[in-house]
Amino acid sequence: MNVSQNYQQFNMASAPLKVSKELTKKVAKGARDMLPQQMAIKEGALSQIKEVFKRHGGQEIDTPVFERREVLMGKYGDANKLVYDIADQGGELLSLRYDLTVPFARFMATNNIQKLKRFQIGKVYRRDQPNSKAGRYREFYQCDFDIAGPSLPMLADAEVLKVFSELLDGFKLDFKLKLNDRRLLELAVTDRAQTDPQMFASICTSIDKLDKEPWDQVQDELNQKGLTYDQVQKLGDFVNGDLANGTDSFETAIGKLETMFEKVQNQEKKGQVLHEMRLLRVYLDAMDIERRVKLDTSLARGLDYYTGMIFEAVIAGGEEASLGLGSIAAGGRYDNLIGMFSKNQIPSAGGSLGIERIFNILESRAAKEEALINPMDIVIGQMGTINRAHVLKIASWLWSHNLKTEIFYENQQKLGEQIKIAANKGARYLVVVGEDELKDGQLLLRDLTKKEQVKVPFDQESLMKAIKRDNLS
Amino acid sequence: MNVSQNYQQFNMASAPLKVSKELTKKVAKGARDMLPQQMAIKEGALSQIKEVFKRHGGQEIDTPVFERREVLMGKYGDANKLVYDIADQGGELLSLRYDLTVPFARFMATNNIQKLKRFQIGKVYRRDQPNSKAGRYREFYQCDFDIAGPSLPMLADAEVLKVFSELLDGFKLDFKLKLNDRRLLELAVTDRAQTDPQMFASICTSIDKLDKEPWDQVQDELNQKGLTYDQVQKLGDFVNGDLANGTDSFETAIGKLETMFEKVQNQEKKGQVLHEMRLLRVYLDAMDIERRVKLDTSLARGLDYYTGMIFEAVIAGGEEASLGLGSIAAGGRYDNLIGMFSKNQIPSAGGSLGIERIFNILESRAAKEEALINPMDIVIGQMGTINRAHVLKIASWLWSHNLKTEIFYENQQKLGEQIKIAANKGARYLVVVGEDELKDGQLLLRDLTKKEQVKVPFDQESLMKAIKRDNLS
Repeated sequence: MNVSQNYQQFNMASAPLKVSKELTKKVAKGARDMLPQQMAIKEGALSQIKEVFKRHGGQEIDTPVFERREVLMGKYGDANKLVYDIADQGGELLSLRYDLTVPFARFMATNNIQKLKRFQIGKVYRRDQPNSKAGRYREFYQCDFDIAGPSLPMLADAEVLKVFSELLDGFKLDFKLKLNDRRLLELAVTDRAQTDPQMFASICTSIDKLDKEPWDQVQDELNQKGLTYDQVQKLGDFVNGDLANGTDSFETAIGKLETMFEKVQNQEKKGQVLHEMRLLRVYLDAMDIERRVKLDTSLARGLDYYTGMIFEAVIAGGEEASLGLGSIAAGGRYDNLIGMFSKNQIPSAGGSLGIERIFNILESRAAKEEALINPMDIVIGQMGTINRAHVLKIASWLWSHNLKTEIFYENQQKLGEQIKIAANKGARYLVVVGEDELKDGQLLLRDLTKKEQVKVPFDQESLMKAIKRDNLS
Repeated sequence: MNVSQNYQQFNMASAPLKVSKELTKKVAKGARDMLPQQMAIKEGALSQIKEVFKRHGGQEIDTPVFERREVLMGKYGDANKLVYDIADQGGELLSLRYDLTVPFARFMATNNIQKLKRFQIGKVYRRDQPNSKAGRYREFYQCDFDIAGPSLPMLADAEVLKVFSELLDGFKLDFKLKLNDRRLLELAVTDRAQTDPQMFASICTSIDKLDKEPWDQVQDELNQKGLTYDQVQKLGDFVNGDLANGTDSFETAIGKLETMFEKVQNQEKKGQVLHEMRLLRVYLDAMDIERRVKLDTSLARGLDYYTGMIFEAVIAGGEEASLGLGSIAAGGRYDNLIGMFSKNQIPSAGGSLGIERIFNILESRAAKEEALINPMDIVIGQMGTINRAHVLKIASWLWSHNLKTEIFYENQQKLGEQIKIAANKGARYLVVVGEDELKDGQLLLRDLTKKEQVKVPFDQESLMKAIKRDNLS
């Protein structure tokens, strides 16, 4: 009787589920499975990222994947429509998190924490148009690092920029950090162009489109929002030209801003902001990353919660530049967000690395080399008709010695085949439980590197003595 | 002018968000934040779990947190009503995953994989009544290990039981594995009690309640489902008494089952199933876990997809027994599930560890000791009025040498205070940038263990030479 076949038959017969038609096997749109090869790349990348965060004193936290809807509402400007809602099945109204920043602000308030240098790695959800080539998914990882708590001007901000530079350097990417400050935008939009302060967030949302749309189109949008010809012209001076394309040195750019804001009413504010921009430049220079940073006055960041320094990291060169990945990290200062959930204002700055785009790059690099996923130390094979209890007994010994061991679940006829499979799994040894050897109370131990085999008494001590632990896990 | 204060003021003024009222800061019901101390415990536990999975040749995969609704529908019996749906905002209908097993089956079909020993660690979602003491949440981690692909009878099943035993042993828990087989239940329910085969899943759902409800109540439910007095009696013989309470040895229990099923019509099936139960006992004995396993005929598992061996791990003793955690791991064989998504039937067995309950145990153990989260190597302080660019320059050197380094973001007046903070962060060194020392081009390097300090020239080479790398990261 073929036991295995019968077993299958009984299972088929006893199925409580009808196996009548093939169900859909589609993954949800904009989401993706991770195969073992991809997971290995991902795990490698995440451990590299965590190392950088920890080197800067970061402490890891986690928050739920969903939040009460009111926590997320009104924080993301135009992007609020991209938030996934959970169906109302009774009870609270929930939504999936859109980023890790707003949940972090809620976390600080909920847990009544006054200061924390935190990092968090988790998936976020956006009902955006997916584009896998550009690394844009509806479910994707963000790796966040934030310094929440008071800081002298630009000090925490500078460290945040350093952290993200280290991350990107770690992946050997040729990148630039585009830098701006919401307060510069405010000087340009509210003070110089004299638009209604209530319109500020909305105007930033329009300016934010400049990396995808030409100025003409943004100009139309601003006109439609009710701005005058003169106001739009003044915004154009600010977001176009040298100040936006990063051709000027940082110092020259600040000089031009001095001139541009010569006539705004609030000179104290102007002085303060430009002073801090200069301070930031000195800090970046001290940490040897000034060369990475380009002031870009057209950078606005769509999200409502930023209040000071803002940045975006983009690929600047190398073979990865052609992938069209857009920004791979971004962030800024948000001094009022935590205060929305708490009586305490806790000034904060941080950023977020979009790991999917890094994965795309690492995957295309990895495609050029063949890596073994989870290589084994030992595989246990067999010859002749044997009771599998012997195989499990030996496996159990090896597992208890922390040796990575696999067995065969089906009958394997040829020893040559078993050797090949074991070698493909990266194993150093094949233990063979042979019908003949068993009669003499022995095992075969084959060294797959040296291509030698020895007989070993069938007991734990003898086997462990015969196995050389070098090169094993 | 107090720069820091003004900075704050400007930020307040420039806020694009109104900070008028305190928003809710509640976490969604049944979910929880993880503080750094908890994350450290969690990360430790997960790396221990991954090590066991990898030792058995597991390969890690990931699937999206949501699936197309039809993928999940009709797989969980009564529990289908606990699935979270995503709101219909246009496009596909999605639901949050209820476990990792059904998405894994879909994954095998989607990616056209014939065999895979996979592990997966991820959050799953259930609209259940939460109970944090018992470790029952609406969002919680599952750690799954499955062997998908053909196996000789009970061979993969035995390894699955071994894997979960190793996991629980690793956490130093006193546990038992309750074991049953869906085919035994089928012999008892369909063959012996002669109920309608279509009723099998529904009857299992009722039996599954026996760990929470007395037999009387389950009996009523079975009566309501239309079973006769005689049928219910016959089920009672099976799910009550010695066969369910684990007082018998495995061998004695199988003997009693022989007697119980003496008269069922399909004797070949009976012979096959009891033969495999005996085989499993031998395998468990060979791996030294038979003592952990108790046959329990009242174990039914609520989920529809099981077809053979089923198990549940429960705390059996020790101080943790009093926590009332219920089952902490569970699983079984499901030979038809992958075939629901694919033309290929791929027999599979596996299990799932509910890590939240383990966390509860580890947290209550950790509460007895004080552990430092992410200890630092070096903290950089200052004395007098100095430019923070010096601090950042030194920090930048240390970060580039992979030393875990923090700076102070605010002014620190007293050296004693800075020493205390640095020591509390676990740092070996405090580097002091002093106004006076700077004039001589020097730094102070204080060894916090030896309580000694030396002056070091303010350059990278001199500083790195003065720092002893032993005991540092």
